[in-house]
Amino acid sequence: YVRKLLQQLPAYDLALILESSTVKSRPILWQLIDPDYQGEVLEELNEEVRKGILKSMRPEKVAAVAEGMDVDDLAEVLRTLPDKVYQEVIKSMDSQDRARVETALSFEEDTAGGIMNTDTITIRPDVSVDVVLRYLRLKGELPEATDSFYVVDRHDRFIGAVSLATIVTAKPETVVTSLIEADVEAVPPDMPENDVAALFERYDWISAPVVGEDGRLLGRITIDDVIDIIREEAEHSMMSMAGLDDEADTFAPVLKSTQQRSVWLGVNLITALLAVAVTSMFEDLFSQLAILAVLNSLVPSMGGVAGNQTLTLVIRGIALGHVGESNSRSLLIKELAVGFLNGLIWALLIASVVAIWKQDLTLGGIIAFAMLMNLTAAGIAGVTIPLVLKRMSIDPALAGSVILTTITDVVGIFAFLGTATLLLT
Amino acid sequence: YVRKLLQQLPAYDLALILESSTVKSRPILWQLIDPDYQGEVLEELNEEVRKGILKSMRPEKVAAVAEGMDVDDLAEVLRTLPDKVYQEVIKSMDSQDRARVETALSFEEDTAGGIMNTDTITIRPDVSVDVVLRYLRLKGELPEATDSFYVVDRHDRFIGAVSLATIVTAKPETVVTSLIEADVEAVPPDMPENDVAALFERYDWISAPVVGEDGRLLGRITIDDVIDIIREEAEHSMMSMAGLDDEADTFAPVLKSTQQRSVWLGVNLITALLAVAVTSMFEDLFSQLAILAVLNSLVPSMGGVAGNQTLTLVIRGIALGHVGESNSRSLLIKELAVGFLNGLIWALLIASVVAIWKQDLTLGGIIAFAMLMNLTAAGIAGVTIPLVLKRMSIDPALAGSVILTTITDVVGIFAFLGTATLLLT
Ligand SMILES: [Mg+2]
Ligand SMILES: [Mg+2]
Ligand SMILES: [Mg+2]
Ligand SMILES: [Mg+2]
Ligand SMILES: [Mg+2]
Ligand SMILES: [Mg+2]
Ligand SMILES: [Mg+2]
Ligand SMILES: [Mg+2]
Ligand SMILES: [Mg+2]
Ligand SMILES: [Mg+2]
Ligand SMILES: [Mg+2]
Ligand SMILES: [Mg+2]
Ligand SMILES: [Mg+2]
Repeated sequence: YVRKLLQQLPAYDLALILESSTVKSRPILWQLIDPDYQGEVLEELNEEVRKGILKSMRPEKVAAVAEGMDVDDLAEVLRTLPDKVYQEVIKSMDSQDRARVETALSFEEDTAGGIMNTDTITIRPDVSVDVVLRYLRLKGELPEATDSFYVVDRHDRFIGAVSLATIVTAKPETVVTSLIEADVEAVPPDMPENDVAALFERYDWISAPVVGEDGRLLGRITIDDVIDIIREEAEHSMMSMAGLDDEADTFAPVLKSTQQRSVWLGVNLITALLAVAVTSMFEDLFSQLAILAVLNSLVPSMGGVAGNQTLTLVIRGIALGHVGESNSRSLLIKELAVGFLNGLIWALLIASVVAIWKQDLTLGGIIAFAMLMNLTAAGIAGVTIPLVLKRMSIDPALAGSVILTTITDVVGIFAFLGTATLLLT
Repeated sequence: YVRKLLQQLPAYDLALILESSTVKSRPILWQLIDPDYQGEVLEELNEEVRKGILKSMRPEKVAAVAEGMDVDDLAEVLRTLPDKVYQEVIKSMDSQDRARVETALSFEEDTAGGIMNTDTITIRPDVSVDVVLRYLRLKGELPEATDSFYVVDRHDRFIGAVSLATIVTAKPETVVTSLIEADVEAVPPDMPENDVAALFERYDWISAPVVGEDGRLLGRITIDDVIDIIREEAEHSMMSMAGLDDEADTFAPVLKSTQQRSVWLGVNLITALLAVAVTSMFEDLFSQLAILAVLNSLVPSMGGVAGNQTLTLVIRGIALGHVGESNSRSLLIKELAVGFLNGLIWALLIASVVAIWKQDLTLGGIIAFAMLMNLTAAGIAGVTIPLVLKRMSIDPALAGSVILTTITDVVGIFAFLGTATLLLT
C-alpha cells in the first residue's frame, strides 16, 4: 500500500520524504520507489543523502537508474561516486550516453559547463518559419523549459537565438535570420554558476545557450537548475555563518554530526582562549574590584552585535554588487559614524545605569568610554574584514564573524579593563 | 555623455548603479535616465531606495512613469506611496489601467494575488490548434515568460492550461480540449508568496495561473518574479539573524542607520544585563578567586556557538520542510546526543588545558562539568526554540539566536560559578 502511495508522488516530494527520514529507514523507503522513477528522485536529493543511497546500491543498478537521467544531473551523480563504482557505471552505459556525460564531466562542477544540458533544438539560418513549425510537429515534443531555438551554421557554430514566441507570431514565410534576437548573450562554459544565476536573475532569462571559445554551441542552461543554484547559494551563506556545510544532512548520524561541528567549535575555543588570555592580564585587578569582573562581558557583547550588523550588511552588499572598490571608502566613513553614534547612545545609557546601580560615577565613565571605543572599532572592522577577506578569496560568510568577534572581544576587554587599571588603581 | 551611457544600460544595471550610490547623488542620476524607461528601473529597485526617489518626484511625473509598468510592479510601487500622492497618481491614470491596478491592490501584498499579472492569453476549449496559431499571429507578440495558454469558458472560468510547446508540436486540426495538461495546478490568490515560490521550485514551473474561489481566472505569476521572491526570502533570513530589515539601504544616511540598528542593540543590552545580573550573584567569589572571573566567558561562549549551529540547522530544516511535528522528537534526541558528545570532547580538552596551566585538577573538573551541561542544554535549546517560535508564528531567524544565547549564557554561568561555589568555598 505504501508502495502505491509512493508511486503517485512527484519526484520532489519523494526526495523530501527521504530527506526527512532517519538514515536507517532511507534504504527501505528507497526500495519501495519504482526503479524507472529513481533517477528523477536522485536528481532532487541533497548531496549527502544521495551519497548514502548510492552507497547502498550495486553498480549495475546505478547504471540502470542513470539511463533515464538528464546529462547535467547524471554528471552531478557520477561525480559523487567512488572511483571504482564510477568506472563500472560508465562501462555499462551505451556509447552515446557515455560520450555526452563525459563532455559534461570535462567541465568543472560549479560552472556553466557543469550545469548545462545537451538537449538544444537547433535550426539553420536560411529556413522559413513554416519549415521550423513543420520540423517541430515532426519532433512531437520539446525539451523542458524550451523558450528559444538556437540558430547554428553547418559547423555547429552559434549564430543567435530565435524565441518560440517569435516563431508562433511571425508570418510563415519569414526567414529565420531576420528573427534572431539582438540581445541574447551566450554563456561561456567556464563561467561560475553563481555568475550564471545572476545573469538569469538580472535579465529574466528562462534558458541560455552555452557557447565554447571556438564559437560552437555546447548546450543550454535552464531556469529550474538556476533556481536550485540560487537556493543553494543562499543556504550556503546562512549555513557557513554558523560554520556548517550547506549539504549537511539534518538527520545525519550522531557521530558524523559531532565530528562535522567540532571543527567550528575548535576554532571558537581558540578565539575564546585568546580573550581569556587577555583577561588574565588583569587578574589582580579582579581581586581588588570584583565588580569589574561582573561587568566585563558587557562591552565585548555589544561590540560583537554591532559589528555583526555591519558585517552582514556589507556581505550582502558585496553579494548584490553594491559594494566595491569605488564606494568602500564612503561606506567605511558611514559605518564608522554609525558605530560612533551608537556607541555614544549606549555609552550614555549604560553609564547612567551603572552610575545609579553602583553609585559610582567613575565606573560609569569607564564603561561608557570602553563602549564608545568598541562600537567604533566594530564599525571599522565590520566594513574592513569582509572586503579584505574577499580580496584574499576567502568566503566572508564563513570566516568574517569569527575574526570580527575576536577583534571586538580584545578591543572591548582592553578598553574596559585597561582604562579601569589606569583610573582605579 | 553620461546620459547617453546610462540610456544604453538595461534596467537592472541602472537600478544597481542607483543602489550603489550615496543618497545625495541618487536624484541627480535619476534625472539623467530617460523618463520612458524610469518605470522599468523603478521595478528593479530595492524598496527603500525606491521610496527615496519617489519622494523627490511630483505626482504627475509618477503617474506618467506608471503608464509603462506591469500591473504587479505598479501595485508594489503604489503601496509605498504616501496617501496623498497615491490619490493623485490614481486620479491621473486612465480608467482601464486604474481598474486593473485596483484589482491587484485588493489582494494582500505578499500573496499570489499581489504578485500576479493580468497579461494572460486565454483560448476557448472548442477551437483547433490551427485557429490558435492564427490568433497568435494576429496578436503579433506574446507577454514575457508565456509558456502556457489558459483555456476558459465564456464566463472566464478556468478549465485548464495548454502549453505553447504542445501547440507547436500538435497537428493543426487537433481540438484544444484534448491537449489540456492534466497536472497543472491553479494557485489561489490568497496563497502566501513564499508558498508560491516553493511550488515553482518543486515542480519546475515557468508560469502559473491564479484562479479565484469562484473558479474564474484572475491572472498569472511568472518565474522572474518568483526568483525575486526567493532572493528576498533568503536575504530576509540572513538579515534578520543580525536584527536588520531586509530592505535596509546599504548607503542610508548615518542617522537613519543608527536608529534602525539601535533596536537590536537595545534587545542585546537587556539580555547582556541579564547575564551580568546572574554573574553579580557570584561577586564575592571573584574577590577570593579571581581566576574564576578570567575563565567565566569560556563556557557561555562555547555554548552559544554550539547552540547556534543546531539552531541554524533546524531553521533550515523547517524552511525546507524536513522538520515537522512527526520527526521533531528524533531530531531532539539526536541533537541532545551531539551536544553531549561535543560537550564531552571539549570538556576533556579544556579540563586538561586548565589543569596543566593552573596546576589545579578541581578547577579543570569544574569547567569540564559546566561545559558538558551547557553544550547539552545548547542542543536541546537549539531544537526547541525554533519549533516553539514557529508554533507561535514568530520568525525563528529573527528571535531565535537572542533567546538561545540568553539561555546558554545563564546556564553556562550558573553551571560554572555555581559548581565553583559548592566545591571551592
Ligand atoms: Mg528535470
Ligand atoms: Mg552544484
Ligand atoms: Mg529579474
Ligand atoms: Mg536540468
Ligand atoms: Mg535540477
Ligand atoms: Mg551545494
Ligand atoms: Mg526587495
Ligand atoms: Mg518585467
Ligand atoms: Mg514583495
Ligand atoms: Mg526544481
Ligand atoms: Mg512581473
Ligand atoms: Mg519583477
Ligand atoms: Mg521584503
